[in-house]
Amino acid sequence: GAASDNDLYINQAIVFIEDAIQYRSINHRVDSKSLWLYRWYYSRTCQWILSLTITVILALAFVEEPSSLTVTSDVRYRLPAWNPPCGLTESLELLCFLVFLVDVSVKSYLIGWKEFWKNKWLMAYILTLIVSLADWIVSLSFFCRESVRIRRILRPFFLLQNSSMMKKTLKSINSTLPEMASVVLLLAVHLSLFTMFAMLLFARTKDNQQDKEWVVYFRNLPDSLTSLLVLLTTANNPDVMIPAYSKNRAYSIFFILFTVLGNLFLMNLLTAIIYNQFRGYLLKSVQSSLFRRRLGIRAAFEVLSSLKETPASAQQSCVSVGALLQVLQKAEMDSRCKQAIMRSLKMCSCDQLSAAQFQKLFEELDKDAIKQHPPSPEYQSHFMQKMQFAFGHPCFGYLGNVVALANIISICVVLVMDADKQPSERDDFFLGAINCFFILYYLLEMLLKILAMGLKRYLSYPSNRFDGLLTVILLILEISTFAVYGFPHPGWRPEFMGLLSLWDMVRLVNMLIVFRFLRIIPNMKFMALVVTTLLDLVKNLRAFAGILVVVFYAFAITGIMLFKGTVVPLGNTRMNWIVPGLSFKFLYFIFKVPVTLGWLTQEREKKVLSWCSAHSQAGIVYCLLYVLSVHLICRWAKIYFVAWWLISSVIWVNLFVALLLENFIHKWDRRCQRESLSGIEYQRTVELMFRDVLEEPTEEELMEKLHQHPHLQLCR
Amino acid sequence: GAASDNDLYINQAIVFIEDAIQYRSINHRVDSKSLWLYRWYYSRTCQWILSLTITVILALAFVEEPSSLTVTSDVRYRLPAWNPPCGLTESLELLCFLVFLVDVSVKSYLIGWKEFWKNKWLMAYILTLIVSLADWIVSLSFFCRESVRIRRILRPFFLLQNSSMMKKTLKSINSTLPEMASVVLLLAVHLSLFTMFAMLLFARTKDNQQDKEWVVYFRNLPDSLTSLLVLLTTANNPDVMIPAYSKNRAYSIFFILFTVLGNLFLMNLLTAIIYNQFRGYLLKSVQSSLFRRRLGIRAAFEVLSSLKETPASAQQSCVSVGALLQVLQKAEMDSRCKQAIMRSLKMCSCDQLSAAQFQKLFEELDKDAIKQHPPSPEYQSHFMQKMQFAFGHPCFGYLGNVVALANIISICVVLVMDADKQPSERDDFFLGAINCFFILYYLLEMLLKILAMGLKRYLSYPSNRFDGLLTVILLILEISTFAVYGFPHPGWRPEFMGLLSLWDMVRLVNMLIVFRFLRIIPNMKFMALVVTTLLDLVKNLRAFAGILVVVFYAFAITGIMLFKGTVVPLGNTRMNWIVPGLSFKFLYFIFKVPVTLGWLTQEREKKVLSWCSAHSQAGIVYCLLYVLSVHLICRWAKIYFVAWWLISSVIWVNLFVALLLENFIHKWDRRCQRESLSGIEYQRTVELMFRDVLEEPTEEELMEKLHQHPHLQLCR
Repeated sequence: GAASDNDLYINQAIVFIEDAIQYRSINHRVDSKSLWLYRWYYSRTCQWILSLTITVILALAFVEEPSSLTVTSDVRYRLPAWNPPCGLTESLELLCFLVFLVDVSVKSYLIGWKEFWKNKWLMAYILTLIVSLADWIVSLSFFCRESVRIRRILRPFFLLQNSSMMKKTLKSINSTLPEMASVVLLLAVHLSLFTMFAMLLFARTKDNQQDKEWVVYFRNLPDSLTSLLVLLTTANNPDVMIPAYSKNRAYSIFFILFTVLGNLFLMNLLTAIIYNQFRGYLLKSVQSSLFRRRLGIRAAFEVLSSLKETPASAQQSCVSVGALLQVLQKAEMDSRCKQAIMRSLKMCSCDQLSAAQFQKLFEELDKDAIKQHPPSPEYQSHFMQKMQFAFGHPCFGYLGNVVALANIISICVVLVMDADKQPSERDDFFLGAINCFFILYYLLEMLLKILAMGLKRYLSYPSNRFDGLLTVILLILEISTFAVYGFPHPGWRPEFMGLLSLWDMVRLVNMLIVFRFLRIIPNMKFMALVVTTLLDLVKNLRAFAGILVVVFYAFAITGIMLFKGTVVPLGNTRMNWIVPGLSFKFLYFIFKVPVTLGWLTQEREKKVLSWCSAHSQAGIVYCLLYVLSVHLICRWAKIYFVAWWLISSVIWVNLFVALLLENFIHKWDRRCQRESLSGIEYQRTVELMFRDVLEEPTEEELMEKLHQHPHLQLCR
Repeated sequence: GAASDNDLYINQAIVFIEDAIQYRSINHRVDSKSLWLYRWYYSRTCQWILSLTITVILALAFVEEPSSLTVTSDVRYRLPAWNPPCGLTESLELLCFLVFLVDVSVKSYLIGWKEFWKNKWLMAYILTLIVSLADWIVSLSFFCRESVRIRRILRPFFLLQNSSMMKKTLKSINSTLPEMASVVLLLAVHLSLFTMFAMLLFARTKDNQQDKEWVVYFRNLPDSLTSLLVLLTTANNPDVMIPAYSKNRAYSIFFILFTVLGNLFLMNLLTAIIYNQFRGYLLKSVQSSLFRRRLGIRAAFEVLSSLKETPASAQQSCVSVGALLQVLQKAEMDSRCKQAIMRSLKMCSCDQLSAAQFQKLFEELDKDAIKQHPPSPEYQSHFMQKMQFAFGHPCFGYLGNVVALANIISICVVLVMDADKQPSERDDFFLGAINCFFILYYLLEMLLKILAMGLKRYLSYPSNRFDGLLTVILLILEISTFAVYGFPHPGWRPEFMGLLSLWDMVRLVNMLIVFRFLRIIPNMKFMALVVTTLLDLVKNLRAFAGILVVVFYAFAITGIMLFKGTVVPLGNTRMNWIVPGLSFKFLYFIFKVPVTLGWLTQEREKKVLSWCSAHSQAGIVYCLLYVLSVHLICRWAKIYFVAWWLISSVIWVNLFVALLLENFIHKWDRRCQRESLSGIEYQRTVELMFRDVLEEPTEEELMEKLHQHPHLQLCR
C-alpha cells in the first residue's frame, strides 16, 4: 500500500542520511527487513561488541603459551608466567570466531550476492575465518601441543578489515608501492655495486697484518653485504672503516662516498617520493569520502521525492519539508548538527525543497564545531566586581605560571643537591614545606578563578580542567601525607608506613607538579601551534597506527614462531618462555633504531661475549639479547630483521614524515590566514584539512552512480 | 666630447649586461676608469687567482703544525708528519693576505664610500683581515710557538664572503633561525621535563641491587641530561632502559613515550618547519636574482638610449640596433646566447628597439640549452645502410647492457668462489680469459657504434663518452697486462712484476667493469629521473656544501685548539700530533651518525677500557678514539660536540632534505608535463627550477631602483 511504501521510503532516507554522516557506501539492500538489520548492525552496541572481540583476540597473545608477561623481565627474579590450561584461551578464541562469523554473514547478506563477489575484503575475511577455524580444530585435536599456529599470524587481519579508514590508507600505501619499490631497487643496486667494489678493494693479501678489513667485514659476499647494509643504517659507521683507514687514509673516500650517496641522497629521496606520492593519494581518498557523503544525501533526496504526498505536477522533483523533519527526528546524528539543520529548515519559508536546497541544508555536517564558553557570573557588589576583574585577567594566569616555574626550579635545586646523598641521610623537610606552600597557592588560584569565572565557564576550558584536576589530586596526596606522617619538621624522615613511604609520596607529588607545569603550553603561541598540530596528527594517525600495530603483531608472532628455542641456556636459567618478550623487544628496538641492526654483525660477537663473561652476575637480560643476536647471525633470520627494518624504520617513518609535513604545512598556512580573523576554529579530521582543495561532485556524477545502485530502483 | 660620452655609455651598457648575466648588483661606480677596473676585477684570471688564494689558505691547515697528514693513520707504522720550518707557511699566508687586501680595496673602491658603510660583509672582511694580520705578527714574534692562533678559525670567512650564492643561502638560513630556535627550545623543554621526571622516577633506593638505573644513567643532573640527549639521537636506545626494564616492565613506557614524542614528533616537526620556511626563502632569493638580471638589462637600455645618435624627437626612449650590436660584440657571454640574440636581432626588421623589445631579446639568457646532436653519416652502400640500421638501433645498446650484466655476474661468481682462498691458491686464468673476451666485445661495440653514428654523433652523447673512455682504459690495461704477464693460461699466477702485480691488475680491471655497468642508468626511466635530480641537486647544492665546509673547518680548528694535549699517552706512542686528524674524524663521525654521541656516555667507558686492554696490539687508532671520548666526558667539551651534532646532523641535514624535497617535487611535476611533449630539456640552476612561479618585476619597480643608483645619473 501507499502508507507502507511511504514508511519504506522514510526508512531508506534515514539510513542513507546516516550513511552520509558516517561516509559509508550506500550500496546495500534497501528493503524494510534489511534496513532494520543494517541499522542494528551499525548500532553502537553491535559495533562496540565487535571492537571488544577484536581487542580480546589480539590480547590473547599476551597470556597464551609461550608468554612472558611478568612484572620483572629479569629471569633470575621472576616467577614463571601463568600458563592457562589447554582449552581456556581456545574457547575464548572460538567465541570470537563465532562473533566474526555473524559479522561476516550479516555484512555479506547486506551488500547482496552480486556485490559480494566483487568485494575482495569480504572474501579474504571468510578465507581467514575458515583457515583460523581449521587451525583451531587441529590445535584442539593435538591438545594444544602443536608447534605451529597459523591462526595467530592471521589475527591482525580482523583489526584491519573492520576499519574503513585503515583499508583506505592501505590502498593509498599500496598505490605508492611501485615508486617506493623503484627507490628500494635503486638502493639494492647501489648496495650490490658497492659490495662488489668493496670485495675487490679489500681482498685478501699475503700479509696477514694488512687484511684486517677483509677478515672482519668483507670476508665473503653475505658478510660484505651485511657490513654495507649496516653502514646504510649508520650503525657501524666509524667501526667499519677503521682497519682500512689505518692502512691508508684514502680508503675512507670509499666509505664516505657510499654513505653520502646511500644515506644522504637515496634515503632522503625515498622521503621525497613518499611525500610527493602520498600527498596526492590522501587527497584522493578524502575526495572519495566527500563523494560518498554527497551521494548518501542525494539518495535520501531521491527516495523522499518519490513519496506519494509530493505533487506529481511539479516539473522538478522536490521534497516536502514535513517528510524531511520526520526523517531528521529519527536519524541518529550529532545533536548540534541536527539542531542547526532544523533551525535553517524553519527559517526557510518554502514548503518544498529542491535538490540543491536539500544538499545545502546538510552542509552543516562539514562544518567545525565552534565552541561557545558560558558567560561569567555577574556580581552586584562593587568589591566582587573588582575581584572578578583582577582574577579573571590573563595576568593572574601568568602569575600562576611563574609560581609553577618557581616550584619546578625549587624541586630541581633539591634534586641536584640530594643527587649523591644516601637515602638514610635524606631530609624531606625543606621540600615538604615548600611543596605544602605551593600546593596551597594552587588551591587558592583555582578557587579564585572559579570565583571570577563561575564553575561552568572555568570547566569549559580544557587547560583549567587539567589544572584543577591535578590541583585536587595534589591536595588529596598532601592531606593524606600529613595524616600519616604529620606536618613537615626538620628530620621529617619517618620509616615506611601505610601504602607508600614518605619518600615515595614526596616523589609522586613532585612528579605531578612537573606534569602540571605543562599548563604553560597554551600561553606560548608557537608551542600551542605545535601541540594542536600534534593532536590533529594523532587523530589523523589512527589509521596509520593501526596498520603499524597490524604489521608489528604479525612480525612479532612470526618471530616467536621462527626463533622458538634458538636461545641457548646461559648458566642454569630456563628460558624457553623468554622468547616472545625478546621478540617484541627486538622489534621495538629495531624500529627507528639503527643501532640494533649493528647487533647482527660478526664484529659485535667478540665484544659481547667478553662483556657477558665479565658481567655474568648482572644484566643477564641484556646479555641474553646479545646472545640471541649473535645466534641470529648464523641463520637466515637476518632477512626477517632487514625486512622489519625496511618496513618500520624506512617506509613507515617516511609515511609518518609525509603526513606530518602535509598536516603542518596546511596548519601553518591556515595560521597565517587565521591571524586576521577573530574566530577560533579547529580542524579535526583529514576531511576538514583538505576542505579548501576538495572538488564538489557534479549532479551528473551523483545521478549516474545512483542509477548503478544494485538494490535501489529509482522511479524516474 | 660626444664621442667619449658615447664610448662611456657603450662601456656602461657592456658592464650592465655582464652584470645581468652573472646576476650581479649594478650598484658600482660607472666612470671609465672604474669600469675598466671593474671588468678587470671580474675577469676570469682575477677571479681564478682569488679562488686559488682561498684554496691555498684553507689547505694550509693540512701541513701546518700540528698536522697528521700521512698515508697510514696507524701510529705504530707511520713516520712523523713533515713539519714545515717556521716562516714557510707564514709567508704563504702573508701572500694570501696581500691578495685579500687588494681584493677588499678594489671592492670597496668600486662600490663607493657611501655604499661601503652599508655593506656589512665588506666591513667584516676588513675586520677579519686586520685581526688575521695582527695575529700573524704575534705568531712571528713568538717564532711560531704561540699556543693560540685565532686567524685559523677565521679562515673559512674568506671562502664565505667570496660567493654571493653562499651569502644568499646564509641569509635564507638566518631568516629560518627563529622558527628553528622555537623547535629547539621545545626540544629543550621536552628534554628538561623528562630529565626531572627520570630523576624522580629512578631515584637512589636503599637496596643497592635495585638502583642500577640510577647508578649508570641518572646519577646526577648532567648524567641524566646526557642519557636522555643521547636517547634522542637513538644511540643508546636499548641500553638505557635495560636496567629499569629488568626491574619492572612498566618503566619502558617512560622511555617509549620520550622516544616517540622527541624523536618521532619533535625531530620530524623540525624537518617540516625547515621545509616550510626554507621553501619560501629560496624562492624569494631566486626572485631577487631575477630582479637583478632585469635591472641590469634595463640599465643597459637606459644608458644606450642616452646615446647622442638616437633621434631626440621620439616620444618613447629607444635604442638603435647598431649600438646594441656593438655592445653585444664586446660583452663577454655564452656564445650560444650571443648568437641567438644576434639572430633574433637580424630577424627583427625594425631599426629602433623599445624597452620591452630590448628586454625580450635578452630572455634568451633564461632559457635552457637544447642540445642538438650532429647527424649520422649517410652511407651509399646498401650493406652499410643495413649495418647502420642494425647497430644504431636501441636494441644493440640493450644487448650491450645485457653483456655488461653477464660480465658483472661472472665477476661476482668468481668473487664468491674465491672468497676464502689463500692468495697462493688463487688462479687468475678463468677471470682473465673471461674478461679478455668481454673487453673485446666492448671494443667491438664501440667501433660498431662509431661506424653507425659517426664519431661526432657518438661523442655528443654523455653515456657514449663514459662508455668509450672506460673501454679504452680497459683495453690499455689489458694490453699492458698481456705485455708483462703473457696471455692467460691455467695457473696464470706469476710473481710481482712491473708497477702492479697481476692480481692488482685484474682487480683494477674488474673494478672498472663494475663502474662501467653504470651505463645502464639512462636506459631505466626512473633511474634516469633520480640521477638527473641528483645531478641538479649537486649543482644547486654548491652553496650549501660551501657553508658546510665553512662550519666544518671552523669546528675542526676549534676542536684542535680545545683538545690539544688532552689525549693521554697509551703505551709508548707519541701522539701529540694525532689530535688534528682525530678532530676531523670525530666531526665526520658525528655528522649524521648518532652512534658517536653514544661515545660520550659513562657507561661506554668501562666497555672501552676493557676492550682496549684486550686489544692493545691491534686497532690502536680505534682505541685512541675511544680514549679521547672517555676523556671528553670529564670536560665541558660535551657542549662542543652537542653543538656540532645540532648544526650538522639536525639542521644541515634537514636543510638538505628540504632542498631535495623541493627539487624533486618540481622535477616530478615537470616530468608528468613533459611526457606529453617531445622536446628534451634540462633545468640546471635554482633559477630555472622556479621559472614557472617567478614574478616578472614591473617597469615602475625597475625604474625606481635605477633612480636610486648611487653613481648613475639618468638624463630623464
